[in-house]
Amino acid sequence: MQHAYIHEVVARDGFQIEPQFVPTERKIELIDALSGAGLAKIEVTSFVSPKAVPNLRDAEAVMAGIERDPSVKYVALIANLKGAERAVAARVDEVNLVVSVSETHNLANVRRSTDASFEGFAEIIRELDGTGIAVAGALSTAFGCPFEGEQAPDRVMGFVSRYIELGVDSVTLADTTGMAHPKQVLDLCSEVRNRWPELEIALHFHNTRGMGLANVLSGLATGVRHYEACLGGLGGCPFAPGATGNICTEDLVHMLECMAYSTGVDLDRLLGISKRLAAIVGRDLPGQVVKAGKSTDLHPIPVNLNQAA
Amino acid sequence: MQHAYIHEVVARDGFQIEPQFVPTERKIELIDALSGAGLAKIEVTSFVSPKAVPNLRDAEAVMAGIERDPSVKYVALIANLKGAERAVAARVDEVNLVVSVSETHNLANVRRSTDASFEGFAEIIRELDGTGIAVAGALSTAFGCPFEGEQAPDRVMGFVSRYIELGVDSVTLADTTGMAHPKQVLDLCSEVRNRWPELEIALHFHNTRGMGLANVLSGLATGVRHYEACLGGLGGCPFAPGATGNICTEDLVHMLECMAYSTGVDLDRLLGISKRLAAIVGRDLPGQVVKAGKSTDLHPIPVNLNQAA
Repeated sequence: MQHAYIHEVVARDGFQIEPQFVPTERKIELIDALSGAGLAKIEVTSFVSPKAVPNLRDAEAVMAGIERDPSVKYVALIANLKGAERAVAARVDEVNLVVSVSETHNLANVRRSTDASFEGFAEIIRELDGTGIAVAGALSTAFGCPFEGEQAPDRVMGFVSRYIELGVDSVTLADTTGMAHPKQVLDLCSEVRNRWPELEIALHFHNTRGMGLANVLSGLATGVRHYEACLGGLGGCPFAPGATGNICTEDLVHMLECMAYSTGVDLDRLLGISKRLAAIVGRDLPGQVVKAGKSTDLHPIPVNLNQAA
Repeated sequence: MQHAYIHEVVARDGFQIEPQFVPTERKIELIDALSGAGLAKIEVTSFVSPKAVPNLRDAEAVMAGIERDPSVKYVALIANLKGAERAVAARVDEVNLVVSVSETHNLANVRRSTDASFEGFAEIIRELDGTGIAVAGALSTAFGCPFEGEQAPDRVMGFVSRYIELGVDSVTLADTTGMAHPKQVLDLCSEVRNRWPELEIALHFHNTRGMGLANVLSGLATGVRHYEACLGGLGGCPFAPGATGNICTEDLVHMLECMAYSTGVDLDRLLGISKRLAAIVGRDLPGQVVKAGKSTDLHPIPVNLNQAA
C-alpha cells in the first residue's frame, strides 16, 4: 500500500484571511484536535509582522499553548531573520520559506524582488544551522500568476534549483490562486522528479476552478507523496470573491483512502473536527464529504420496496 | 488535438429535482442558448409520467418550442413504450434508457427488477426500429449504490453486455450518487474499453464528494471521450442534503481546454448562460469558474508596486 502524507494548513493559510480574528484558545483547541488525527505536518502559524497578518498576531501564544504530539511536525511560515529567531524560540519543527516564481507576485506579496527573497533565505538558513529545524522552500505561483499568467517551466526549475543549493529539506510547488491544471501538474512534476529524484516535493493546490483533486491525481501519478490541504476547504483567493480556497483536507483523505492509499489519518475524526471548524468560523465550508458522508456510508433501503417488485 | 464531447444534462437531470417548476419558456430559452454554445448533445427532458417527475410535465411543449441546431443531438430520457411513442412524436435525435446496476436501486427508482427493465428495453428498441432515433443505454449506480455499496465489476460488465446485445448505440456509465473514485474509474473503464474497444462510452459523474473532475481525468486516461455534465453544477443527491450534484459543465470544459482538448464549446458563452441559469433558479450554483474566472483571466498589477521594489 502506498502512503501519502497530509500537511494541514488551516491554522495558517485558512485563518490568515478569515474576516474575523480566530481567538487563540480556539486555534489551540483545533490544532490539538488535529494532532490526534494522524496528520504528518500541521502548519501552526506565521512568524511575520502582526501588521502584515493581524489574524496571526498570536503566533507565540499558539505555539506555546498547543500540546505537541511527537509524531507530528509543527511548521511555521517565516519571512525574514526576525521570523527565524521567533521560530527558534518557539521550537517549531520546521519553517516554511516562500518566494513567488512570478516577479510581479513576489513584489506584490512581500515587497521585494525574487533575488532579494533568495538572499534573505540564505541568511535565514545560516541562522537556523544547528538548531535541528527543518526548512521547506515553497514556490508560490509555480503553476501560474494572477498578474503574469503561466510561468515558464524553466523558471520554476531554476527556482527549485536555487532552493536546493541553499540546502532546504523539501520544496513545495504551490498553486497559489488555483490556476494549475492536471496536464501542467503532470508535466512540471515529472520534470522536477526526473531531475531530482531524491528531492522531497510537496504540492499545494487550491480548488478555485474545481481542479484541485484532479491535480492531486496528476501529482500522485508522478510519485509525489506530500500534499498540503486545508480543513473544510477553508481559505480563499483575494482575486476571486466567492471562489473556494485550498483543497479540502477531509475530501483529499477520503479520495486517497478510496484509492487504497494509506494516509495515517483518522477520517472520521477529521470530519468531526471539520464540523467544529465550521462552528468556529460560523459558516458552512466548501468541503463535500462532511455534507455527503463517505462513499462507504450506506443508506437504509426505502420501505415498501418489496411490494413494488 | 484530442476531442472531448460534452453532453449537457441540466434541462433534465438538473431541473427534475429543482424545488420549483422551471417555466416552459425559461427551459426553451436556456436550451436555445445552449444550442449555440457548441455542445455535442443536449438532454432536453424526460418522457415519463408527469406524476413521477412533475417538473418535466411540459416535455412535449419544450421539445416543440426549441429551435433545433442540426449540429446538436437532442436527447430525452424514456422509461417505457409509451415514452418511446412520445419521443418519436417529438422527433428526438436520441433516447436514453436507464437501469440501475444495483437491484435495490432499480426497485427504488423504477419499481421493477433489472430483468424487467431489460425486457422493457427490448420492446422499446423494437418500437424505435427504423425511426432513425439513436439509443443510449445508461447504467445507474455503476460505481456504487447508496443502499448496496460498490457493485461488482463483473455485474457491471454483464449489464454493458446486455445493452450491447439489445443493439444500443452507446453505453453510459453513471455515478448516480457520487461514489466513484479515480482508481475505480480507471479500472472499470479500462475493462470495458478492452473488452469492447469500438463501443461508444459516455461517463456521467457527480461531484458529491469532490472527486468529479478527478474521475473525468481517469476516464480520459482510458480513452473515453464523452462526458455528461450539468450547467452550473446544478442538481443534487436526494441522499445528501447540501451536497453538490452533477459535475459542472463549464468547469469541465475549462479543465479540458486547459489540458488542450478541443470540445467545440464556446466557454465564454457557456459562462454567460450559467449566470442566466443562476438567475432562473434564483440562487448561487456550485460551479467554480463562473465565480473565479478562467485561469487565463489575468488581474491588473497592484498600484504602487514599483515603489516597493
